[in-house]
Amino acid sequence: MMDDDDQTIRNGAVAIKGENIIAVGEKEDIENRYISSEIINAEGFLVMPGLINCHTHAPMTYFRGLADDLELTDWLNNYIFPDEARFVNGEFSYLGSLLACAEMIKSGTTTFCDMYIFEDDVAMAAKSAGVRCLIGEALFDSPSPNLKTPQQGLKYTEMLIEKWANDRLVNIVIEPHALYTCSRNLLRDLRRLADRYGVPVATHYLETKSEKETLAAKYGKSPTSFLKDIGYLSDQFIALHCVYMEEEDIQIFADHGCKVVHNPESNMKLASGIAPVPEMMSAGITVGLGTDGCASNNNLDMFQEMDTAAKLHKVANLDPTVMDARTVVRMATHEGAKALGMGDIVGSLQVGMKADIIVIDMNKPHLTPLYNEYSHIVYAVNGADVDTVLINGRVVMRNRTLLTIHEDEIVATVEETAIRIRKQFGKN
Amino acid sequence: MMDDDDQTIRNGAVAIKGENIIAVGEKEDIENRYISSEIINAEGFLVMPGLINCHTHAPMTYFRGLADDLELTDWLNNYIFPDEARFVNGEFSYLGSLLACAEMIKSGTTTFCDMYIFEDDVAMAAKSAGVRCLIGEALFDSPSPNLKTPQQGLKYTEMLIEKWANDRLVNIVIEPHALYTCSRNLLRDLRRLADRYGVPVATHYLETKSEKETLAAKYGKSPTSFLKDIGYLSDQFIALHCVYMEEEDIQIFADHGCKVVHNPESNMKLASGIAPVPEMMSAGITVGLGTDGCASNNNLDMFQEMDTAAKLHKVANLDPTVMDARTVVRMATHEGAKALGMGDIVGSLQVGMKADIIVIDMNKPHLTPLYNEYSHIVYAVNGADVDTVLINGRVVMRNRTLLTIHEDEIVATVEETAIRIRKQFGKN
Repeated sequence: MMDDDDQTIRNGAVAIKGENIIAVGEKEDIENRYISSEIINAEGFLVMPGLINCHTHAPMTYFRGLADDLELTDWLNNYIFPDEARFVNGEFSYLGSLLACAEMIKSGTTTFCDMYIFEDDVAMAAKSAGVRCLIGEALFDSPSPNLKTPQQGLKYTEMLIEKWANDRLVNIVIEPHALYTCSRNLLRDLRRLADRYGVPVATHYLETKSEKETLAAKYGKSPTSFLKDIGYLSDQFIALHCVYMEEEDIQIFADHGCKVVHNPESNMKLASGIAPVPEMMSAGITVGLGTDGCASNNNLDMFQEMDTAAKLHKVANLDPTVMDARTVVRMATHEGAKALGMGDIVGSLQVGMKADIIVIDMNKPHLTPLYNEYSHIVYAVNGADVDTVLINGRVVMRNRTLLTIHEDEIVATVEETAIRIRKQFGKN
Repeated sequence: MMDDDDQTIRNGAVAIKGENIIAVGEKEDIENRYISSEIINAEGFLVMPGLINCHTHAPMTYFRGLADDLELTDWLNNYIFPDEARFVNGEFSYLGSLLACAEMIKSGTTTFCDMYIFEDDVAMAAKSAGVRCLIGEALFDSPSPNLKTPQQGLKYTEMLIEKWANDRLVNIVIEPHALYTCSRNLLRDLRRLADRYGVPVATHYLETKSEKETLAAKYGKSPTSFLKDIGYLSDQFIALHCVYMEEEDIQIFADHGCKVVHNPESNMKLASGIAPVPEMMSAGITVGLGTDGCASNNNLDMFQEMDTAAKLHKVANLDPTVMDARTVVRMATHEGAKALGMGDIVGSLQVGMKADIIVIDMNKPHLTPLYNEYSHIVYAVNGADVDTVLINGRVVMRNRTLLTIHEDEIVATVEETAIRIRKQFGKN
């Protein structure tokens, strides 16, 4: 049966031709009308749009669980930064991203937005895995293992834009890492590049209290006013985290159509704070959901992220009606797609959309009984319940078997190559 | 290899004879020495003690997802209470608990502490499933579908104590539902019953702010002082939730050796508040972990509960070092067992303990690479990664196939019998 806002279908069917959904409806009707098309028969299963992970650092699967429960500066300076300087290269980003794609497909994510270094290799991994993505090289003033100068960063990003133009799965975003790591000149140059090619800009924004205070002191005004004054804010501006948004910031974002990505589990684990998500949504801001990278979560399971998003804001507001299940499912699907500028191609089960679809096996003890699909998706389903995944009309997992990635091989390869990292840092 | 506090073992082996662990150590050594015993070979897998779910309402699996995201009074008065009055009977409690046992085994829980009505039926379901439990009938002044008067409640509880005395898996606890639902006379009678048989007492305690205020007004003193004055506090007193504990309450609990059970996901979903768990642990209180019932969570997965417990207190305290992974794993195992008065028989991988053991398949994309077992258990493993479960030396699940429960049958039966509930209340 169709649900009233087209987000899920139960005991129905979806017909697909090529890359697109061509019909959604009753099983019998679909089977009679679309004999030659690929038909996803959802009898006993639940079909919904693939999940949209709006913010991650795919290659950081390599650092999963290497260092937890630490102060931010200890974590960054003694683990993450030296690890990255020593171990990250193109192969690292490729293999780490392939592992991330395996995990994402197996937990129902069909599109991800990524920020890291050697992002061309991330794009190649996603392409090889058949996963839709929005990819951007992290850009900042200081050298990275990939790029020695900001100018090289601009050139590399331009190369990404041109190389992947018109790709069916890979899209490019310009990603200044954060305001506190980018000079005004670099921000200006990136803005010009974005305008020239018409691509979106995404950046970490107001993730911590100290970041906000530092920026306010640096600019002599609120960071949001600064961004407004330098012409950064538009409906193609994607702000990641937004934990320390005040009423004024929210209003400015709403006025400019800026998009926000919420990463509740990372914000909790790093003790960053609780983003005012209900307030931002009330103001009309499009808010997507992300897992952040595996160094700060430590998984890419969007079902768990939905569960946490729903519960966190209830307790933070002492109001159990906040962030109801239906709202949270939309955050992880349609709203997420809109945040990434893909709302017209993915994120809904509608005729004409790209066939990015997941099929969930509901016939399990922890999903019994079934009164309300949205409730189960948010509060009971986890990634391992996803049975089959299609992206752009292609089946990338069937009955939990990956069809585009050699699962055992990538697991063994990453485990083996992580030995170097383990030797260097040991257990924490 | 053995870990330094005996909580996990990786690439090692455990030998079991009858109900007990008789050796833990290196694979080769164990295999050579214990040829005739059951040997759990953990090569490529992780072995740890079964998880202890210190607070749930097992039969409420029947209400999973029936009503979410509602104000507490709306939820209770328009859904839960009328549902219970209309549908709950012995068969309901038996079938709902059997389904709960299936879910618990499949997500690595080997012991649960339960409070509901028709608890003799819950005990029979647990016994049939081979799951260890601490069972108590919810007792209050008003009539329940099972018991018309408080006096019947006392007799029923005494019957449970005598019927299940010396059972290998089923243990009995006396459970006044909460201070606000029990008269002083009922509390006094239950205390006498507990003293007579030497059994523990468990009750919902300070779950909401209004509960605390109501009780303070009723008693003319803090609820904790009231309990102290009527002789309720001891190391056999288990307080469930404890969200609104102040410094004085914590000190009194610590002085009397009282036990606390933390239910973070339920407290978040119902917007009750955040319990001061780090403070209670610092004061030396034993704190176990629970999922609460499926009407307010909506699952019984203790791995997700650990993840939430670790992250919630970090963000609440704006301190990422709070509730580190090792501490949280101990809460879900050894500390939980201690909270239930079972610390000398389960909750640790030690020679002489009952063989309540789970084996986790770590060879998966989302668990790769593996630097630190505790980190993965809390932040990355979910229930579906549990491969094999033993309780009291008996294999109750092997390679994810339940051996003590007909999984398909209980799923179908509950789904079918839930139709009555669905007809009455529809979707929310």
